[in-house]
Amino acid sequence: MSTLPTIADLHDVALDARLHQIIDQKTKPLGALGRLETLGHRLGMILGTEAPRLRDPQLIVFAADHGLAARGVSAYPSDVTWQMVENFLAGGAAVSVLARQHGLALSVVDVGVRHAFAPRAGFVDAKVAEGTADATRGPAMTPAQCAQAIDAGRRVVAERPGNVLLPGEMGIGNTSAASLLTARLLQAPLAACLGRGTGLDDAGLQHKRAVLSDALEQHGAARTPLDVLARLGGLEIAALVGAMLQAAAERRVIVIDGFICSAALLVAAQLAPAVLQRCVFAHCSTEPGHRLLLDHFGAQPLLDLGLRLGEGSGAALAWPLLDSACRIVCEMASFDSAGVSRSS
Amino acid sequence: MSTLPTIADLHDVALDARLHQIIDQKTKPLGALGRLETLGHRLGMILGTEAPRLRDPQLIVFAADHGLAARGVSAYPSDVTWQMVENFLAGGAAVSVLARQHGLALSVVDVGVRHAFAPRAGFVDAKVAEGTADATRGPAMTPAQCAQAIDAGRRVVAERPGNVLLPGEMGIGNTSAASLLTARLLQAPLAACLGRGTGLDDAGLQHKRAVLSDALEQHGAARTPLDVLARLGGLEIAALVGAMLQAAAERRVIVIDGFICSAALLVAAQLAPAVLQRCVFAHCSTEPGHRLLLDHFGAQPLLDLGLRLGEGSGAALAWPLLDSACRIVCEMASFDSAGVSRSS
Repeated sequence: MSTLPTIADLHDVALDARLHQIIDQKTKPLGALGRLETLGHRLGMILGTEAPRLRDPQLIVFAADHGLAARGVSAYPSDVTWQMVENFLAGGAAVSVLARQHGLALSVVDVGVRHAFAPRAGFVDAKVAEGTADATRGPAMTPAQCAQAIDAGRRVVAERPGNVLLPGEMGIGNTSAASLLTARLLQAPLAACLGRGTGLDDAGLQHKRAVLSDALEQHGAARTPLDVLARLGGLEIAALVGAMLQAAAERRVIVIDGFICSAALLVAAQLAPAVLQRCVFAHCSTEPGHRLLLDHFGAQPLLDLGLRLGEGSGAALAWPLLDSACRIVCEMASFDSAGVSRSS
Repeated sequence: MSTLPTIADLHDVALDARLHQIIDQKTKPLGALGRLETLGHRLGMILGTEAPRLRDPQLIVFAADHGLAARGVSAYPSDVTWQMVENFLAGGAAVSVLARQHGLALSVVDVGVRHAFAPRAGFVDAKVAEGTADATRGPAMTPAQCAQAIDAGRRVVAERPGNVLLPGEMGIGNTSAASLLTARLLQAPLAACLGRGTGLDDAGLQHKRAVLSDALEQHGAARTPLDVLARLGGLEIAALVGAMLQAAAERRVIVIDGFICSAALLVAAQLAPAVLQRCVFAHCSTEPGHRLLLDHFGAQPLLDLGLRLGEGSGAALAWPLLDSACRIVCEMASFDSAGVSRSS
């Protein structure tokens, strides 16, 4: 899987028209189901059918540590990364609870956690390194490590069934990496891409800004998406990029969670813009950089609940709306089939 | 059931503190699940427990016809009310599809539809009259009819199991009744309470405004909630008021759908303010009057998807979020139980 997959354009005028027609003939005033109608239409377009059905949804959490965490950019110590991986697998984390509620298959992939995990069901060992290096002193990853992590993400998706990917992530320090990718790839001011992450206070936020500013300066020359990803990103973010590209190539629906997943999508979309056609945006997080990315994608997320947890928790929370949208398209009666009078 | 139920205040300082503590100790940064945390807290307070669990949720659609519909205030003919009741029961309406998806028990109650229905499972005959009278010429209901409809709503709830009510409604012309109730009981300008309903054009909207203005003038003296309800409301709205009061008295969670349900809640809350403590607001519809009511209640609804269908469809769409919130409170591990390090 050393080359990146080709991702076809989903343009299909005939299907587009048929889906609009099907939705407009349902027993409801025209447009009365609002964005659920838009969502049903989109899911039909992604899956290439006028009767979209979601099968075997895969919630895949990619986890890795960050060299930058040693610089005090997070409110939590790096050990929380492996501790939370254990928590995911034990069923006690938010994403575990939500995946169980909705029947989402949960996999946790170690792409670079500084910890040795015992093998078990739901866990995938794809460790590339013991975390990234400190991006203020050199590249976070070598190009080879970055490619290996992308490849790991692709492989995990390719090996799994279903037609929906809900990508998630865990990595203390990864809002920093996401801010760096956003600032560089959108050419946006760092301050606009930066937030409190897991809960920094004002002094912590100021320190984070200084550290990230150093990192950007250190890699001032990096411009191509893959080079920026390797130098400023993270192993789990690279794996997310690979997972999204693979899912897009297989024409799976991709449910985009929060800031980190959206930063990964930014890289993926710069490599292959058509990946965006497969995406549904779950929610808007309180990290300021996330709003910036959503606006850049022209995305209108389904939920706005003040979430800032990551893990894929926002994607899991939005899941039932995707399911509802498909059922509306497939199961609702039409005016004709139900014998309901139309508007005058 | 001829007198209205007493609804106790849910004030409980100790439970309030315990719920906050439980939620804050979950393995996530403080507040990182945003409004899902607030929701879990609220559900615990309503159900009076630090381990809230939702049981046997009841989606009850009250249906009735409106005398005002003959005045051309809706884009659809009155016959659509009974046709949609048939559609609900046949499983083809939006609310049928969503109730099926989420395992919500669906009941459809005829409080005043101008049609004779064959008895069947899921259908409740509680017909008070063949629709309301034209409120521009006299009271929509007599006080006795209004009381009978309230009573029907109470009875249907009292006879059903579970601890959650998701009220819904169907009645061609009922956005008009909801606008009248909102304008009068909030003392708000009619124009601010008025929308296109199922899809009026500009001329239709102007005509609706003129008709509703006549109705308000006809009943200029009506001020008490029950008098206003009887003169300007609808049979299904009166039943909703009864259902909400009964559910509140039994300490059930009430999931408030759109404009019509919110107008019924306005009446219920003026009769017994503590009913509001039991409510969760599902979504914000595109009917202008709904925003007005939500602001009046100080409510921040869970979804904002541009819905304007009614039926209880918005409540059904929000349902999984309530379930998630309870599971977060009951099933997530704490920092201590999972051995996860706290923030520094």
